[in-house]
Amino acid sequence: MSLIDLSKQVALGVDIGGTNTKFGIVNHRGEVLDKGNLRTDAYDKVEDFIDALYEDAYPLMEKHGSEKHFDGIGVGAPNANYYKGTIELAPNLPWKGVIPFAELMTAKFNLPCTVTNDANAAALGEMLFGAARGMKDFIMITLGTGVGSGIIANGNLIYGHDGFAGELGHTIVKPGGRKHWSTGSEGSLEAYASATGITITAKKMRAEFPESMLNQYPEDEINSKTVYECAMKEDPIALEVFRYTGQKLGEALANFVMFSSPQAILLFGGVIKAGDFILKPAKLHMERNLLPIFRNKVKLVFSELNEADAAILGASALVWEK
Amino acid sequence: MSLIDLSKQVALGVDIGGTNTKFGIVNHRGEVLDKGNLRTDAYDKVEDFIDALYEDAYPLMEKHGSEKHFDGIGVGAPNANYYKGTIELAPNLPWKGVIPFAELMTAKFNLPCTVTNDANAAALGEMLFGAARGMKDFIMITLGTGVGSGIIANGNLIYGHDGFAGELGHTIVKPGGRKHWSTGSEGSLEAYASATGITITAKKMRAEFPESMLNQYPEDEINSKTVYECAMKEDPIALEVFRYTGQKLGEALANFVMFSSPQAILLFGGVIKAGDFILKPAKLHMERNLLPIFRNKVKLVFSELNEADAAILGASALVWEK
Repeated sequence: MSLIDLSKQVALGVDIGGTNTKFGIVNHRGEVLDKGNLRTDAYDKVEDFIDALYEDAYPLMEKHGSEKHFDGIGVGAPNANYYKGTIELAPNLPWKGVIPFAELMTAKFNLPCTVTNDANAAALGEMLFGAARGMKDFIMITLGTGVGSGIIANGNLIYGHDGFAGELGHTIVKPGGRKHWSTGSEGSLEAYASATGITITAKKMRAEFPESMLNQYPEDEINSKTVYECAMKEDPIALEVFRYTGQKLGEALANFVMFSSPQAILLFGGVIKAGDFILKPAKLHMERNLLPIFRNKVKLVFSELNEADAAILGASALVWEK
Repeated sequence: MSLIDLSKQVALGVDIGGTNTKFGIVNHRGEVLDKGNLRTDAYDKVEDFIDALYEDAYPLMEKHGSEKHFDGIGVGAPNANYYKGTIELAPNLPWKGVIPFAELMTAKFNLPCTVTNDANAAALGEMLFGAARGMKDFIMITLGTGVGSGIIANGNLIYGHDGFAGELGHTIVKPGGRKHWSTGSEGSLEAYASATGITITAKKMRAEFPESMLNQYPEDEINSKTVYECAMKEDPIALEVFRYTGQKLGEALANFVMFSSPQAILLFGGVIKAGDFILKPAKLHMERNLLPIFRNKVKLVFSELNEADAAILGASALVWEK
């Protein structure tokens, strides 16, 4: 062991999404040395998926050193449980029930494996390699198809007693509000601030305002991208879609700040391409809902990580955070 | 130092409220050996208050050993900052601005002094001496004139980057809802679930329902105590006041659970005298707003600490938590 040159140690980072899985070999400086991907939804059995991942990843791993250079495998996945190493009842993955994922990975790769949910992994990635370097208290919010979160307090991820802490996308921002398409809850942050939520808002608003540019698109092309195109052309309805989204996000952020008083909130994911259209109202409504002692203190910033690599970096950070 | 018998070590715990200050000598087992109190609001200058506290407390301290038996002083106070040792802009205290309270105490008592907000102190008291012994993740909610909170995650209090974390009473449970009498925010938990909030709800509801027993009291006697009396006599309006309060509390608790996934939520303070009238709807509305993975896992319990001593115990716990 004493002969190992730490600067040559690497980790395998794996990011499992509902459709695609990305993986990469990452070194201590947060450089992705090599990467690949495979379809998640092509494997009905988790064992087949892990076999396929091994087939794809092992040649890359051999290229970057033998087993002794690998400190471990970090996996970010929806509904992953850090304490138990499981993926549990994930609605968007093909594998049902409670999957002992870390155990299966270790059996196949002969390396220690740690799992956590994808947003927690993203938060670790930001802390080790991104915009949150040196911060001990921050919250990461991922705004994609859904809304995820990872919370760092006192320099550590908050896992909670059962490993499931940090489901901020499912907190209720408007009691009795919009029904969530999958959970059935009413008025959750995800129902408004995810890409899916933005699409719902846009469809509703364009129906109310026939003059909106948004009505030039067929129904199935209404999404955060087309809303952005119309907002760039100053369509007031498209602008209002983002403003409303930003307001709901900002109201939620104020509550999060009064919980853990973070130094910064980092935003990440496809939705942030809307930039100031969402960020400005989010900031405004966050500040106006804060107690005075919290005002003008919390940085609201976009992730600095390359979106293509962030999930892999975050997953690999799990290996070194332990 | 090596001659000191740890079992004889004690701490001075001080709980500063807007009207009264309580203090006590506490040992390692959480026994209050001696206690006293003085008026907070009788001293316009904080230096005079500390002098008076010293006059009252020092004789008791001498009785329980010399300075060498005292590990330190712990102070719970509104708007107290753990990192800076200050009390800052506390609306309910007579001393304005930013008070270097720990420094002033150390200068007078010649002992190290740690401060934190009263609800954080209560959470530490529960962890060291009360219902949360052995728990590493729980949330303490104090339901009194106001609503305070202390959050323990990974076995530590969450202070946030600036020492002000855990202001859950000021999180918004109903956007655009009831205006807070002091902060001006709209729809905060405190506006509904504090004793003050219950009084507002009761006055509003009795005006709507002339047949309510609550109308037998003069306006200035409507408070959580008289609502309780009417609820015990099965007045449906009084029962509805508590049910509504419990609902708002439960909705807020669901959001807190999805933040830090605590093993338990501990409730403390005058309002919990309403017992099941509030607890049952709180539990119901917490559960129905939770994602399935969190359901039926979180214990919702009342504090086990003697209310008269809890604040002193909590403050003293600060000394040993460090």
